[in-house]
Amino acid sequence: MMTLAGNKWRQGCPRIREILALEASPGSVTVAGWVRTVRQGKGVAFLAVNDGSCLASLQVVVDAAAPVGAVLPRIGTGSCVAISGCLVVSPGAEQRWELQAAKVVVFGPVDEGYPLQKKRHGLEFLREIAHLRPRTNLFGAVFRVRSRLAFAVHRFFQERGFLLVHTPIITANDCEGAGEMFRVTTLDPFHPPAENGQVAWREDFFGEKAGLTVSGQLEGELFAMAFTDIYTFGPTFRAENSNTSRHAAEFWMIEPEMAFADLAADCALAEEFFRALIHCALEECSEELAFFEQFVAPGLVARLASVAQASFAHMTYGEAIERLQGSGRAFTFPVAWGCDLQSEHERFLSEQIVNGPLFVTDYPAELKAFYMRLNDDGRTVAAMDLLVPRVGEIIGGSQREERLEVLERRMRACGIAPEGLAWYLDTRRWGSCPHAGFGLGFERFLMYVTGMENIRDVIPFPRTPGNARF
Amino acid sequence: MMTLAGNKWRQGCPRIREILALEASPGSVTVAGWVRTVRQGKGVAFLAVNDGSCLASLQVVVDAAAPVGAVLPRIGTGSCVAISGCLVVSPGAEQRWELQAAKVVVFGPVDEGYPLQKKRHGLEFLREIAHLRPRTNLFGAVFRVRSRLAFAVHRFFQERGFLLVHTPIITANDCEGAGEMFRVTTLDPFHPPAENGQVAWREDFFGEKAGLTVSGQLEGELFAMAFTDIYTFGPTFRAENSNTSRHAAEFWMIEPEMAFADLAADCALAEEFFRALIHCALEECSEELAFFEQFVAPGLVARLASVAQASFAHMTYGEAIERLQGSGRAFTFPVAWGCDLQSEHERFLSEQIVNGPLFVTDYPAELKAFYMRLNDDGRTVAAMDLLVPRVGEIIGGSQREERLEVLERRMRACGIAPEGLAWYLDTRRWGSCPHAGFGLGFERFLMYVTGMENIRDVIPFPRTPGNARF
Repeated sequence: MMTLAGNKWRQGCPRIREILALEASPGSVTVAGWVRTVRQGKGVAFLAVNDGSCLASLQVVVDAAAPVGAVLPRIGTGSCVAISGCLVVSPGAEQRWELQAAKVVVFGPVDEGYPLQKKRHGLEFLREIAHLRPRTNLFGAVFRVRSRLAFAVHRFFQERGFLLVHTPIITANDCEGAGEMFRVTTLDPFHPPAENGQVAWREDFFGEKAGLTVSGQLEGELFAMAFTDIYTFGPTFRAENSNTSRHAAEFWMIEPEMAFADLAADCALAEEFFRALIHCALEECSEELAFFEQFVAPGLVARLASVAQASFAHMTYGEAIERLQGSGRAFTFPVAWGCDLQSEHERFLSEQIVNGPLFVTDYPAELKAFYMRLNDDGRTVAAMDLLVPRVGEIIGGSQREERLEVLERRMRACGIAPEGLAWYLDTRRWGSCPHAGFGLGFERFLMYVTGMENIRDVIPFPRTPGNARF
Repeated sequence: MMTLAGNKWRQGCPRIREILALEASPGSVTVAGWVRTVRQGKGVAFLAVNDGSCLASLQVVVDAAAPVGAVLPRIGTGSCVAISGCLVVSPGAEQRWELQAAKVVVFGPVDEGYPLQKKRHGLEFLREIAHLRPRTNLFGAVFRVRSRLAFAVHRFFQERGFLLVHTPIITANDCEGAGEMFRVTTLDPFHPPAENGQVAWREDFFGEKAGLTVSGQLEGELFAMAFTDIYTFGPTFRAENSNTSRHAAEFWMIEPEMAFADLAADCALAEEFFRALIHCALEECSEELAFFEQFVAPGLVARLASVAQASFAHMTYGEAIERLQGSGRAFTFPVAWGCDLQSEHERFLSEQIVNGPLFVTDYPAELKAFYMRLNDDGRTVAAMDLLVPRVGEIIGGSQREERLEVLERRMRACGIAPEGLAWYLDTRRWGSCPHAGFGLGFERFLMYVTGMENIRDVIPFPRTPGNARF
C-alpha cells in the first residue's frame, strides 16, 4: 500500500492517485487540486477535484449547511483548492472513496472568463489555449502518457547498457542535405555585415553559418564508435512550410546506434523497442488508454494489444513492389521499382498484405541518404522502414556505410562535399566498424498510441508555421 | 550473475563490462571493441580492448607464433577488432580475466595519422578532436557519468510522481528579460523583408520574431498548475559572448516545479535531489570517480561522500551579508546589503562559515527575476540559492508570485509589459496556487561531480563563441 505520508516537502498532502488506490481509509487527509465540476445535491455540493496525478478526480462532499459550506459561493469549475476531511467509502456507485470536507481553502478562484467550462471543447479551440488545456481530461491523459513513455524510452536503453548522448542542437552541419534548416544567428538582422556581396557569416556568433539540427545521428555514430551502444533523445527541427496534421517544426526524436550490428540486428532492436513501448502504454497507462478508447479512437486498446503480440513481417523493397503490382489495386501513385513508397502503399502492405507490423528493407540507393550501406547488388542499400497499420512508416533506419571509399563515392553522388564532413569520415578512417541505427519520431509514436490525429495535440506547445506562442 | 548470452540482436557477443564481472569462465566468448594499447611480451602480444561499457579494458593475449598471430601487424592503437577465444584466469596481477585469442577479425585498421596515440593528450588538443575524444579513458568516464546521471534525474522525479514536460526550444518569449537570445529565422539573411525601416518579422517562419529558449520555467509553471509536480530536462541557450570555462552557448537544464509548495518545500526538494544525484554517482559510477580522483581531482570522492552526508545549512541573505561583513575578510568586491553575492562571497560562506552546503534565501527583490514571490517585508523575495564548497551557487530557485496584482506590479517595475505574457498571467487569473521550483544546470553539476574544470569537457560537442563544429 502506498503511504499517505506524502512526500516530505509537501507534508501530509498525498496525491489523488495514491488516495484512490487505498485499501483502507487512513481517516483524515488533506488534498489539493483543481475543481473540475461542481454538482448540487440535497443540501450538499459534490466537487470533483483533480490534481493531475491521474485521470480520475476525487469526489469531495461539502455540507452546504455546515460552516464549511460558506465557501461554496467562491468555488466553481477551475478553482484551486485544498481540502481536509475524512476519507470514507462512497455510497455512490461511481467511486469507491469520497472526502467529507471539514475545511476548504481556496487558493485561486475563477471568474466567468475562465475558458474551460464544463463541456467538451473542440481541439482547435484548445490549441488556442495551450496554456490551459493540460487541465482538461483529454490533455491530462495525453501528457501523462507522454511523460511515462519518455521515461520508458530511457529505461529501455539504459537497462540494455546503451549510453545516452546529448547531441548538439545548434550545428554547422546539414545532416542529410535533407530537411530545410532554421538559421541560428545573432547578427544584426536588418544590416548584417557583408563581404563580397554576401552575409559575412564569420562575424556571426559561431564564426560560420549555423542552424538547428535535423538529426543527432551523425554525432550519435561518433559515440557508437566509442561506446558500442548509444541512443539520443532530443529535439530536432524542420523549417518546412507544411501545415499538415503530421508535421511540426520542432519535435523529439529517439535515435539509437549500435556498433557491430547489421541490418538484421537493427530490425531486431527496433522490434523489441517498439514492442516494449506498447507494453508500457498498455500496462502503465491503462486508465488513459481506456479514456482514448472511449472518446478518441474506438478499438485502440485491442489494436495495440494485437501489435504487441504480433510477429513482425520482413519483406525487401523489391518484393514489396511486386506484391503491390500484383495486388490488382488501383493506387493514386503508380508503383514501379525505383519509386518511393507512398503512405497508401505502406498502409496497403501492412494492413492488407501482412495485416500487422512489417519491415521493408533494401531500398534503391537513390531513394535513401548517403550514409546507408550499399548492398552487394550495387543498387540497393541496407535500409529498413517499419510500417504499421493505419499509420504507415513509423521507424526508419539502416546499416551505415562503414567503408571509407564507398562512403566518399556515395557522398559525391549525392552532391555532398566529403570535406565538409571530414570529422564524420575520420571514424571510417580510423577504427571503423559495421554499425546500424534507426530513428523514431516521438510525437508520431504518441499519435499512434493515443489515437490523437494531429501532432499539435501530443506536444505541449506545438511549433508550426506562424505559431511560436507560449 | 549476468548472462553471457548478450542481447539477442548481437548474438553471443557480450559487453566487456559483463565479462569482467563474471564469477566463472563460460569457456569461449567473442568480444568486439577498440584496441587501446598493444604491448609485446615473450612470443605474445597483449591487447587492451575497450568497448566503452566500462573504464577497464579486457586483456587479450595473442600468440605471435600461432596462426592467429598473423593478424598482429594489422593491429595498433585505435584498431577496431572482434576476438573469439577462451576466457581464462589471468596470471597477471592487474586483471582477473584474460582472453586467449583463437580468432581475430580486424573491422577497422588505423594508420599513423590516428591522433590518439598511447600517451596523455592535453584537454585543449582533445577538444579539437571532439569526435574522437570519447575513445579516451577520460572522456569515456565523463560521458558514462553523464549518461547515468541523466537517467538518475529522470528516475528521481518519475519515482516521485513528477511529470516530464518537453517545454519548447523555439520561443517568442524572452523568459526573464535576462540572458541574450539567439534568433531563429528563415528570412533571407541578406535582404530581409522590410517594413517601416525594420525587419518585417511577421513574414518570418513563425509570423513573429523567435529565438531559442533561455529557460523552460514559465511553461513548466503552466504544467505544474495542472499536474501539481512536473520537471523539465532539456537544452537551453545563451547568446553571451563570454569565453569562460563555466559558460557554454548551449547547455542542459533541469527545472522542477511544484504546486502547493513554498520556499521551504523547494529547499527540501533541492536538498533531496542533490543528495540523490551524488549518491548515484558514488554508487553507480565508482569506477569513473576513482579515475577522476587519481587523474583529475584528488580528494574528489571524499568530498562527494561528505556532501552526501552533510546537513544543509540555511541562512537568509541578510544574515549572509552580516556574516560576511563580520568576517574581517578583505573581499575583492565589497559587501553591503543590496549587492549581488559574488563567487568569492558564496565560496567563503559555504567553505569557511558553514563548511558544507548552504541555502541562502530571501534576496533583495531588485537582484532577482520578476516571477519570484515578494515577501511580506516588501523588499525581499522568496528566492533560494544552494551554495556548495569550491563552486558556489549550483542551484537557484524560488517560490513564484501567485498573486496576480503583485505579479503585474513587479513586471512593470522590471520593465516587462504584462500584455506580452498574458498567457502566463492567466494562470494567476484562474485557479492560481502557491508554487515553487528551481533550476540546476546539468553541466555545472557534472563539473562538480567529475572534478572537470571546463564546461567544454563535460558536454559531447560544446557550443561556444566561434565554435559549432561537429
